[in-house]
Amino acid sequence: MPLWHVYHPPTTFTTAASKTALAAAFTKLYTDIGLPPFYVNVYFHQIPATDIYIGGQPQESTEPGVEPLARPFVRFVGEQIAVRMEDSDEVYAQWLDKVDVALKPHVQDKGYDWEYHIDETERRLWKVAGLYAPPFGSEEEKMWFRVNKAVPWKE
Amino acid sequence: MPLWHVYHPPTTFTTAASKTALAAAFTKLYTDIGLPPFYVNVYFHQIPATDIYIGGQPQESTEPGVEPLARPFVRFVGEQIAVRMEDSDEVYAQWLDKVDVALKPHVQDKGYDWEYHIDETERRLWKVAGLYAPPFGSEEEKMWFRVNKAVPWKE
Amino acid sequence: MPLWHVYHPPTTFTTAASKTALAAAFTKLYTDIGLPPFYVNVYFHQIPATDIYIGGQPQESTEPGVEPLARPFVRFVGEQIAVRMEDSDEVYAQWLDKVDVALKPHVQDKGYDWEYHIDETERRLWKVAGLYAPPFGSEEEKMWFRVNKAVPWKE
Repeated sequence: MPLWHVYHPPTTFTTAASKTALAAAFTKLYTDIGLPPFYVNVYFHQIPATDIYIGGQPQESTEPGVEPLARPFVRFVGEQIAVRMEDSDEVYAQWLDKVDVALKPHVQDKGYDWEYHIDETERRLWKVAGLYAPPFGSEEEKMWFRVNKAVPWKE
Repeated sequence: MPLWHVYHPPTTFTTAASKTALAAAFTKLYTDIGLPPFYVNVYFHQIPATDIYIGGQPQESTEPGVEPLARPFVRFVGEQIAVRMEDSDEVYAQWLDKVDVALKPHVQDKGYDWEYHIDETERRLWKVAGLYAPPFGSEEEKMWFRVNKAVPWKE
Repeated sequence: MPLWHVYHPPTTFTTAASKTALAAAFTKLYTDIGLPPFYVNVYFHQIPATDIYIGGQPQESTEPGVEPLARPFVRFVGEQIAVRMEDSDEVYAQWLDKVDVALKPHVQDKGYDWEYHIDETERRLWKVAGLYAPPFGSEEEKMWFRVNKAVPWKE
């Protein structure tokens, strides 16, 4: 938790540095609210451009008469588990504002199109290295932050 | 939104035309209810046949004594965000009927096995090109439909 | 249903036997509670080690000054549909205990790091081969178990 999937065409995130920078931006979103860095999983899925369709249009086309997309399209899917946000328009909007700021240099500023959505799943159906995570904001969580790995704690 | 993932073995969706046709069918499902075409994201994930297991059986096997699946298996995962359906057996069933009709030529008629499920996620945790989407059925949404892209609107 | 995605670096699950063994372990989890084997979908996604980031660290790095992860990291995502568990700490914990036991030989005993979470989605938005699944525990479900495929039944 969180798990961010980045589905991107081969013309984007072509260098290790560009991936490392985005992964750092995602990670900072969560460490800023106190979550241990290792909670943040980012997976880059390079998808062949002929396997991505937006509104029926492929990212790239080899078919006569089929118009490809004008710009690279990057799709992010976030799964948040450790903290369930308060169900509030304002809380949600504040969080997405932060996500937008984090993503901007990696997509908008590069001339890409992009989209993201976040799903929140059940914290009690989540384990790291066979362990439940300590409660959000607890001393044990702070300890996990410091050692940056899952270690046994008294539940 | 919606995002449809198509997890398929290499023996299926082998041509651009077959992918374009399925992407068009998915897109029509949503444009028929008034959603802008570009909302519809379809990703084809070609999975090596030895990496797909159904009931413990691989799609294709190199192991002695391991029986592979008899037919190609295609797994669809749909994530719907823009419109939360009414929680009703009838509404759900009507929607799945439409999905079934859309999928039939692309799987059943080709002799494939297939399965799908749909998850609905929080609309307020979704942005396209840094923008919230206009309300379902609104004039602004109709405008997005016409221009077929996310453009600023007065929230 | 269930659908388990296994996101793993190329240094793990390198043999067909290792994949078959894990798929069997996942399958047994569900057949033990009476679900037909073919319900269980396991997908192995081999992700390039430079496309996996945990806490901002890549599984493997080519960048000077970037510290890669110490051990292979495997991320499991489970989507359960057929049976919605009772919303109870105890029921959840008992299920995760079983998942832990099933996964142990395939990750912990091999010296990997790992993490999983499970999401539960709407049963009424799920079809196999164009059919709704029979109710959990029904005679029709037992019939599906025996024939190990989706066949028409009287709803």
